[in-house]
Amino acid sequence: MEHPGERYERGLKALQFVSGQAEPAVVDAETAPDLARYVVEFGYGEVYSSPGLEPRDRQLVTLGALAALGNAAPQLRFHINGALNAGCTRAEVVEALTQIAVYAGFPAAINAITAAKDVFAARDADE
Amino acid sequence: MEHPGERYERGLKALQFVSGQAEPAVVDAETAPDLARYVVEFGYGEVYSSPGLEPRDRQLVTLGALAALGNAAPQLRFHINGALNAGCTRAEVVEALTQIAVYAGFPAAINAITAAKDVFAARDADE
Amino acid sequence: MEHPGERYERGLKALQFVSGQAEPAVVDAETAPDLARYVVEFGYGEVYSSPGLEPRDRQLVTLGALAALGNAAPQLRFHINGALNAGCTRAEVVEALTQIAVYAGFPAAINAITAAKDVFAARDADE
Amino acid sequence: MEHPGERYERGLKALQFVSGQAEPAVVDAETAPDLARYVVEFGYGEVYSSPGLEPRDRQLVTLGALAALGNAAPQLRFHINGALNAGCTRAEVVEALTQIAVYAGFPAAINAITAAKDVFAARDADE
Amino acid sequence: MEHPGERYERGLKALQFVSGQAEPAVVDAETAPDLARYVVEFGYGEVYSSPGLEPRDRQLVTLGALAALGNAAPQLRFHINGALNAGCTRAEVVEALTQIAVYAGFPAAINAITAAKDVFAARDADE
Amino acid sequence: MEHPGERYERGLKALQFVSGQAEPAVVDAETAPDLARYVVEFGYGEVYSSPGLEPRDRQLVTLGALAALGNAAPQLRFHINGALNAGCTRAEVVEALTQIAVYAGFPAAINAITAAKDVFAARDADE
Repeated sequence: MEHPGERYERGLKALQFVSGQAEPAVVDAETAPDLARYVVEFGYGEVYSSPGLEPRDRQLVTLGALAALGNAAPQLRFHINGALNAGCTRAEVVEALTQIAVYAGFPAAINAITAAKDVFAARDADE
Repeated sequence: MEHPGERYERGLKALQFVSGQAEPAVVDAETAPDLARYVVEFGYGEVYSSPGLEPRDRQLVTLGALAALGNAAPQLRFHINGALNAGCTRAEVVEALTQIAVYAGFPAAINAITAAKDVFAARDADE
Repeated sequence: MEHPGERYERGLKALQFVSGQAEPAVVDAETAPDLARYVVEFGYGEVYSSPGLEPRDRQLVTLGALAALGNAAPQLRFHINGALNAGCTRAEVVEALTQIAVYAGFPAAINAITAAKDVFAARDADE
Repeated sequence: MEHPGERYERGLKALQFVSGQAEPAVVDAETAPDLARYVVEFGYGEVYSSPGLEPRDRQLVTLGALAALGNAAPQLRFHINGALNAGCTRAEVVEALTQIAVYAGFPAAINAITAAKDVFAARDADE
Repeated sequence: MEHPGERYERGLKALQFVSGQAEPAVVDAETAPDLARYVVEFGYGEVYSSPGLEPRDRQLVTLGALAALGNAAPQLRFHINGALNAGCTRAEVVEALTQIAVYAGFPAAINAITAAKDVFAARDADE
Repeated sequence: MEHPGERYERGLKALQFVSGQAEPAVVDAETAPDLARYVVEFGYGEVYSSPGLEPRDRQLVTLGALAALGNAAPQLRFHINGALNAGCTRAEVVEALTQIAVYAGFPAAINAITAAKDVFAARDADE
C-alpha cells in the first residue's frame, strides 16, 4: 500500500521534470497551501504520473487545452516550456499552436504563438 | 507551383484518413458551401497536411482543445475516432481525456469520456 | 419622466419584432419570473431599444457573440431567426457564421451552420 | 497518518450527500476507472471535504461556475440538485442562477433555469 | 409605484456596499455612459438588490462564475474584495477559489488565487 | 483559374484596409511563418474577401465574437479599430460592445469598453 507522502514525492519529481526547475512554484503556497499541495499530489503525483501516456504526449494534450481556452497565459507558457523539456522541438510546438487556429480560432493561435515566442526567448537568454 | 485544386485533393485525403470514411461530411455543404470547402482546403489541405507534426500528435492536440472547450461534442467525437485512426489506443485516448480534468475541470473531462464511450461503442458495432 | 411599465411595453415590442411572434417566450416565466421580466425590460426594453444601432446591426453583433461562445444553441437559433426578421438574407447569415471559423474556430462555425439549417427548415415549413 | 482508502470513503460519503443517492455515478467507471476514482478521492474526498467552507456555500460557488461556463448541463443539473440537498431553497437556486445573467449573460442564465426546471420536476416526480 | 430614479439610488448603495467605496467606478462612464448606468440600475439596483439571496451568498456565486470564466481579472478582484466586504473570511475566499480547480481546472483556480493575493495585499496596505 | 499568389495579394489588401496600416503585422512571422501566411491568405484573402457580406457588417460580427469570448484583447483592439475604418462611428462601436452585456455578461462588455477607450485614445493621438 502506498504511503500518502509518496504521492507528493512522485508529483514533485514530475513537476521538476516538466518545469526544468529544482523548486518549481506554480501557485502561491502561502496564500493557498491546499491548492499548492493539490497541484503536486493530484495534478502531477496522480494524473501526470499515471503510466498510460508518455510525457511528450501529455504536453501536446495540455498545449491543445490551454491554447484553446486562451485564458491562462502563465500556464500556457509553463507548458510550452514543459513540452520542450519533454522532447518536443520548437518547430513542433509552433506547429501544434498553429493548428489551434482551426479548432479555436486565429486569435487563440496568435496569442499562443506570442507565449511561445516569450518562452523561446527566455530559454535563449538562459543558455 | 501548386494547382489550386491540389489543396482540395490533399485535404480530402487527410480528411478521409482522419474520419476513416470514403465520403466524410463534417459540415452541411448545401447550407454553407464555402465553409465546407474551407474545412477541406484549409483545415485539412493546409494545416493538417503541413509536414511539421505527425497525425497522431495532431490528434492529441485536437483532443486537448476540443475536450477543454467543452462546447463541440460532434467534433470531439469525430476527433476521438480520428485519434484511434491515427494510432492512439483506446487507453491512450481515455488517459488524454482524463488529463483534461486538471486543465479544464472535471465536468469537461467527464463529458469527453461520455463522447469516447459513444465512439468506442460505435466502432464495436461496426466490426 | 418615463413610467416604469413603459420599459416592459417597449421591450415586448422589440422582442415581438425579433422573434416574429405575438407571444414570445424565451425563458420559463413560471420558474424564474424575475429573469423573464429582466429579459423584456432590460435586454429588449433598454439595450436593444437604445437608438444607437440599427436592429440588423444588433443581430450581426449577437450572431457573432452567440456563435463564438458556442454554448447557447437555443439562443443562437432564436437570433438567426431574428437576423432574418431584421433584414439579413439567408446568404448573409451563412456568411456571418462562416466568418466565425476565423475568430472562434471551425467547430463553432460548423455548429452555428447546423443551427442555421434548422432555422431555415423551420421557416420553410411555416410558409 | 491517513490510510489511502480513507480518502475514497470520505469522498463517497460527500458524494452521497450531494447527490442524495446511495450509489451515485457521475462518470462511466468502466470506460474511465481512474477518472471515476479521482472524482471521489480528489473532488469529494479532498476538496469538497475540506473543512474551510460549508456544503451550502460550496454549492453556491459551483452553481456560479457551472452556470457561467454554460457547457456542462449534466453537471449543472447534478449540482442544482446538490444545492437543494445542501439546504438551498428552490427560490434561492433560481435567484443564484438569475444573477448569472449579470456575470455571464442572459443565455447562460436562461439555460441554467431550464436545467433547474428539469431538476425541480424530477424531484416533484420522486415524491 | 417606483420612481425610475430609485433604481439608480438603490443600485448605487449596493455598489457602494460591495466595493467599500463612496464613489465606485466599474466602467468608464465617459466612454460608455449607458453601460455605466446599466451596471448601477440593472446589475446592482435590480438583480443584486433583489431580496431572494443574501449578499454573502451572491458573492459566492459571483466568485464561482468569474473564477471559472477566467477572462475577467479586474472584475474577479473587485468581487473578491466584495466577498470580504459581505462577510466572507479570507480563508473562505481561498477555499472557494481552490474549489474552482474541480469545476474549471487548476489554471483557473491558480489565476484566481493570484487575484486574491493582490486583493489581500491591497487591503493590508490600506489599513 | 486563380494563381495561388492572388490569395495572398487579395488578403494583404483586405488586411491593410481593416488595419489602416501599410504593413500590418498581426502575428510574429518569424516565430510562426505558416500562421502568419494563413492569416493573410485564408483569414483575409478568402473569408474576409468573400463577396457575401460588407466589411462594416463583418466587423460587427467580429466585435460580437471577440468581445463575447473575452480572452483576446489584442485582437479586439485591432478589430475595434477595423470597425472604425470600415465605417462604424465610435458611438456605434460603443453601442455594439454595450450590447455584449446581454449576451456574454457585464464583465465582457466592460472589458471591451476598456479596449475601445484605448483605441479611441490611440486614434486621437495619431491625428
